[in-house]
Amino acid sequence: MRRISKTAAVYPGTQLGADVEIGDYAVVGKQPTLGGRSTAPREELSPLVVGDGTCILAGAVVFAGTRLGKGLIVGDQACVRERCDLGDDVVIGRGAFVENDVLIGARTKVQANAYLTAYSTLEEDVFIAPCVVTTNDNFMGRTERRHALRKGPTIRRGARIGAAAILLPGIEIGSEAFVGAGAVVLDDVPSRAVMIGNPARKLRDVPEDELLGP
Amino acid sequence: MRRISKTAAVYPGTQLGADVEIGDYAVVGKQPTLGGRSTAPREELSPLVVGDGTCILAGAVVFAGTRLGKGLIVGDQACVRERCDLGDDVVIGRGAFVENDVLIGARTKVQANAYLTAYSTLEEDVFIAPCVVTTNDNFMGRTERRHALRKGPTIRRGARIGAAAILLPGIEIGSEAFVGAGAVVLDDVPSRAVMIGNPARKLRDVPEDELLGP
Amino acid sequence: MRRISKTAAVYPGTQLGADVEIGDYAVVGKQPTLGGRSTAPREELSPLVVGDGTCILAGAVVFAGTRLGKGLIVGDQACVRERCDLGDDVVIGRGAFVENDVLIGARTKVQANAYLTAYSTLEEDVFIAPCVVTTNDNFMGRTERRHALRKGPTIRRGARIGAAAILLPGIEIGSEAFVGAGAVVLDDVPSRAVMIGNPARKLRDVPEDELLGP
Repeated sequence: MRRISKTAAVYPGTQLGADVEIGDYAVVGKQPTLGGRSTAPREELSPLVVGDGTCILAGAVVFAGTRLGKGLIVGDQACVRERCDLGDDVVIGRGAFVENDVLIGARTKVQANAYLTAYSTLEEDVFIAPCVVTTNDNFMGRTERRHALRKGPTIRRGARIGAAAILLPGIEIGSEAFVGAGAVVLDDVPSRAVMIGNPARKLRDVPEDELLGP
Repeated sequence: MRRISKTAAVYPGTQLGADVEIGDYAVVGKQPTLGGRSTAPREELSPLVVGDGTCILAGAVVFAGTRLGKGLIVGDQACVRERCDLGDDVVIGRGAFVENDVLIGARTKVQANAYLTAYSTLEEDVFIAPCVVTTNDNFMGRTERRHALRKGPTIRRGARIGAAAILLPGIEIGSEAFVGAGAVVLDDVPSRAVMIGNPARKLRDVPEDELLGP
Repeated sequence: MRRISKTAAVYPGTQLGADVEIGDYAVVGKQPTLGGRSTAPREELSPLVVGDGTCILAGAVVFAGTRLGKGLIVGDQACVRERCDLGDDVVIGRGAFVENDVLIGARTKVQANAYLTAYSTLEEDVFIAPCVVTTNDNFMGRTERRHALRKGPTIRRGARIGAAAILLPGIEIGSEAFVGAGAVVLDDVPSRAVMIGNPARKLRDVPEDELLGP
């Protein structure tokens, strides 16, 4: 049975699956309002698709043009922008922000207040701790060549990124890698590496008993 | 006199004291929606209790099962989860997030966008600057033994934590200690110590004229 | 043509220009609710002024006593407090927070989740990346002399501050300077300097092709 709060704003055309929950004051399926100087594409967006059993909680905002799988949670006051694809059983924590054009694999958790930049890719079973920060533009809005070079992180299966860690643009975090809280990661990280510090350096490998396995 | 915005959602059973203010689109006393894999307890929660003169401002979300003392402010767009106990005259700044099972002593200030992890304890007269990050799980969701080891910070009376500082799991910050902006604190901090850097190290003691005294 | 969501709360007296857009559940022109111990001034505030073509998006909160120029965007879930002055074509990203008494020059971008402390000054064409943190009080609420010493950053024309960088109180960032992601800036930064690390140190000058020019 669907539970749609009377105070939620669900935009026309939004496709809601079975047993969906929409919380108070949630905004579901809205079109983006782009600034005059925004570099995001300006196209007609298809409706938001919300899979069976997915919950969009109080005050959350989810845009048109995005697909949410089944059994997802978009937490209170979180935001997911346009042209994202989020797999089944993903959790987007309270206040987290997923920018446009982000892909997130099944069972990945993005915890409270984390920031996923546009054009990020997260595979399955990734863990993004609270307040993680990702980036996609070394030029911060200058030069024309930045558009071609803009690239978010690629975070492979089972990697874990610690609280408030910062990932520089375009890096790849290997499968089952572990980035410590507060680390600032400048370069690609090998699979299973434990990285700490600013700038981040390898400390050791993730121990066997913390691996997901194949 | 109570000032309850007509647009606020106050859940049935919520106990509101005298002179309470509830802002626009605030969500007050809701039950949690837990993910299928969440480790938070799943029990019937008692109603939210809001003390005399407490203000819950625009867009804030406060859960059932929590007690707010008297004269508190929960700022715009902030969030306080279930089974928390917040003392009199506490301030929770705009956008700050207090996770489940957090204890906060009287007059403590948690400033804008700060993140208090589940099972944190803050005593009286603590100062949490904007964007502080706390953590409670060194395993980031792996292994079964993590459940027994999960522990948030304990922050003693009168300690001050600087902007965007990061506290690793389970540490104790001594009374009247001072953690500088951006410090990454790995271990317990003695009373009155001034700590800076990543990893944080002791610089000196807090000067006499900045102490609260006994 | 104005597009004002039926669910927005626009306070009486607010001055809306032509072609203004107000999103769902936005709170526009409200008076502040100050805590008993807040040090912010307690005066009657003039109404909020919103310039032509400015958009205040879903769930955003903008206070009375502030002026928004023309063509601005205040993003979803963002917040702008009282006595701010924001120039034409400024962008305040999703979830960003602009505290009281902040001045922002034309075309400056404050990206998602950034935190601008009270009494900050940003000139024109500044770029504040996501999750930047600024500060204004080295005493964190102690001593009486802190009131006289409280000072936010001054960020000169065309400077760029990287993701999750932290600026200590009262510093000046020179024109066209570039602060790297995650840097912790303790002191004034010369014009055009590239600064990285914790504590931040100068790496080189910004290359010619990234300058705005005079």
